[in-house]
Amino acid sequence: MTDNRKAAVFGGGVIGGGWIARFLLMGWDVSVFDPDPEAPRKIDAVLENAKRSLPGLYDHRLPNQGVLTIAASVEDAVQDAEWIAECVPERLDFKQGVYAQIQAACQHDAIIASSTSGFKPSELQEGSSRPEQILVAHPFNPVYLVPLVELVGDSDTVNRAKDVLDGLGMFPLHVRKEIDAHIADRFLEAVWREGLWLINDGIATTQEIDDAIRYGFGLRWAQMGLFETYRVAGGEAGMAHFMAQFGPALEWPWTKLMDVPELTDELVQTIADQSDEQSGHHSIRELERIRDDNLVSMMRGLKIQNWGAGELLNKVDKNLSQLSGRDTTGLITSIERVIPVDWTDYNGHMNDSRYGQVFSDAADAVMQLIGADAEYIDAGQSYFTVDTRVQYLNECHAGDAITVVSKVVNGQGKKLELHHQMLNSAGEIVSTAEQLLIHVDLTTRKSSLPSEEVANKLAAIEAAHKLI
Amino acid sequence: MTDNRKAAVFGGGVIGGGWIARFLLMGWDVSVFDPDPEAPRKIDAVLENAKRSLPGLYDHRLPNQGVLTIAASVEDAVQDAEWIAECVPERLDFKQGVYAQIQAACQHDAIIASSTSGFKPSELQEGSSRPEQILVAHPFNPVYLVPLVELVGDSDTVNRAKDVLDGLGMFPLHVRKEIDAHIADRFLEAVWREGLWLINDGIATTQEIDDAIRYGFGLRWAQMGLFETYRVAGGEAGMAHFMAQFGPALEWPWTKLMDVPELTDELVQTIADQSDEQSGHHSIRELERIRDDNLVSMMRGLKIQNWGAGELLNKVDKNLSQLSGRDTTGLITSIERVIPVDWTDYNGHMNDSRYGQVFSDAADAVMQLIGADAEYIDAGQSYFTVDTRVQYLNECHAGDAITVVSKVVNGQGKKLELHHQMLNSAGEIVSTAEQLLIHVDLTTRKSSLPSEEVANKLAAIEAAHKLI
Repeated sequence: MTDNRKAAVFGGGVIGGGWIARFLLMGWDVSVFDPDPEAPRKIDAVLENAKRSLPGLYDHRLPNQGVLTIAASVEDAVQDAEWIAECVPERLDFKQGVYAQIQAACQHDAIIASSTSGFKPSELQEGSSRPEQILVAHPFNPVYLVPLVELVGDSDTVNRAKDVLDGLGMFPLHVRKEIDAHIADRFLEAVWREGLWLINDGIATTQEIDDAIRYGFGLRWAQMGLFETYRVAGGEAGMAHFMAQFGPALEWPWTKLMDVPELTDELVQTIADQSDEQSGHHSIRELERIRDDNLVSMMRGLKIQNWGAGELLNKVDKNLSQLSGRDTTGLITSIERVIPVDWTDYNGHMNDSRYGQVFSDAADAVMQLIGADAEYIDAGQSYFTVDTRVQYLNECHAGDAITVVSKVVNGQGKKLELHHQMLNSAGEIVSTAEQLLIHVDLTTRKSSLPSEEVANKLAAIEAAHKLI
Repeated sequence: MTDNRKAAVFGGGVIGGGWIARFLLMGWDVSVFDPDPEAPRKIDAVLENAKRSLPGLYDHRLPNQGVLTIAASVEDAVQDAEWIAECVPERLDFKQGVYAQIQAACQHDAIIASSTSGFKPSELQEGSSRPEQILVAHPFNPVYLVPLVELVGDSDTVNRAKDVLDGLGMFPLHVRKEIDAHIADRFLEAVWREGLWLINDGIATTQEIDDAIRYGFGLRWAQMGLFETYRVAGGEAGMAHFMAQFGPALEWPWTKLMDVPELTDELVQTIADQSDEQSGHHSIRELERIRDDNLVSMMRGLKIQNWGAGELLNKVDKNLSQLSGRDTTGLITSIERVIPVDWTDYNGHMNDSRYGQVFSDAADAVMQLIGADAEYIDAGQSYFTVDTRVQYLNECHAGDAITVVSKVVNGQGKKLELHHQMLNSAGEIVSTAEQLLIHVDLTTRKSSLPSEEVANKLAAIEAAHKLI
């Protein structure tokens, strides 16, 4: 027994497992009821994924992990539980049967939250003695990372559910009127139907459809959604202009899904008003820049993972890098770049840690130049930085062009000592760094001598740099 | 005259302006034809946005910006142009008239690329003497950041267009069969139609719809799209399992758009086969982790911008931060966190620049503790780091828990000198840092004395730390 809050989860599949992981990692105890003997293994797999990803979202440590128990009975599972997540198969009669068992044993103020994709609360509540206790709390896979939860049901229960979900770091969205498939899945279903048509008619493959999404509007939707994106696209004339431009397309065969609403003046006005309320506190100009900063930051995030739009950025960067042919008898121009928008801090200038990143990249550039490149590292050798000293002389801002000039001060034996100067576009020194790197065997993780080829290149550069 | 390659752009609106910016920043010269006297002002606005965002996508500098000219005639505009972007209003007869003028003057091997959202190449080419020269190259707003361009038309012209777009850092997608609205806009149109229904029927507002997208499936689509996401959701059983589970929903009123294709065995098999070809080289387990790493990296990108899912992360972090009540007579536990997946490098360990980031965050934590917090900075005062020395003693990996313990070595006058130790969960020291910060007046950007309150807090901590 602990003092932690307690949740019960019915069904340990992908969705149930996601709920379990979110609650546990946020410090709740969780008891699971699932007769499937494979359930513990499946839950472990989801929990392992969650533990390697969720804590890294935050810059502070999470509460101590809660205790997971596999309950032997419904009664054991729901005892002391504040939140009871129902994640059983999508069959209405089956779900109703589960609620009857749960309600016979659970606290009267516990929240019974169904993960259903499609059923309405009124359907779930049929025949229940305490219907207001049962609501829809529809999450999205992977539940331990994606924030959205659609809440549908009694407004008092919804409000209490919001508090719980806020505490879990999720985004509860109150769906005010019940409707089949709530809100998000209606869009997913529309897109799914159109996607099936495109494949059925031989227009596009699954790969082509996914690429059309993830290199295009998917990036926009991850940060602004549909209507705010269109508000910005409408430009200075705004939402009404956009609707006038694309309204007629409703009559055209731009999708196979032709059951369209009539675009009355009243509907146009409603949308324009709602859009004003949603986004009117920002000018279009501001929204454009917010959108652009978001896109740059997200794509640079994907760049680190070398995936999708980020993989594309890496390809371009490889072309932009011109190091291979560079003359090394003079000092090395190791970095020529612009400060991106995701590198500034609350002071409005480049965060001091990013100076370190630039110098780290400068060391990488020198390593490439001496042949200690990706291939060399794949073959099991590399240089590790052991000591860095950075002096900050001037500020830099997003959009500033900077250059780093690097000098090999010592390239003997296992050591690589570098001095760097960072210059702005006016030629002023904004920062200097001294780095000590040690050559390492990646198998033993111990220091070692570089290959003869690397050692020779390094010696030649060191000799040339001594004359400068 | 320059040696740069040349593009011509017809129409300087939001889309035309985006093409202009992309070409110029990638080193092409651009001539614009647009009779609107406001065009130069509109183009400048887009170019300004592009210049502050696009260069920061990359870690190397872009080519020198090309030369922009406003052409006095169609002939001037298209002279020497390899690429002619048509971005005029969406009226077929008007577009055809523009092509006739262009083709009378342009090089026969120039690519005439229409940005049309909906027209098919066969429609655009009607009546043209060199129809194969005209294709659809449909971009997405903002054109200077979003990579996708849908190419539809003659396959030789499409191949040449691909080379140009690759060079611009874009993602050309060959739409193999022409169809109204190509591929991506068909999905946008389906979602738009469903969205209009939801607003029309009073189910949701524009804000609620956008939130349902950007806190939910929008994040998934920005990196994997629709089908790869569902392949992962299907779990170990894969795509066929997923289709079996959600196939029946096609008959249900999950959207108002009921013109659905029949889900024949053949169609299911086609989709499963295409999905295998697209993603079969990764196991479901691998895809889960790729997806999770992408989500974490993108959400952490949005966190820097404090927007959408990133704003939510910042709220949770604020709750997780427990600094305010901390005892400062002992050393300060300034950081307790986990290494996120976006902090590791090709060596498989935490990139050395991220050690600097942790120590930068540790300095921030100390600043907060002495009252040099966000409010203090808003009021015009702060500490700037002027010198940092980091020693790297041990490796860290994604998922490792780390703690930083900080000591105030000197807190007199304008100076703040900190010593930090970074410890792993085994209590081993993985890195140490010495930092010198100087108090700065943010208006004059010159060094200054801290407020009396800050100075007093600092003196008390310094005195206590001297005893340790």
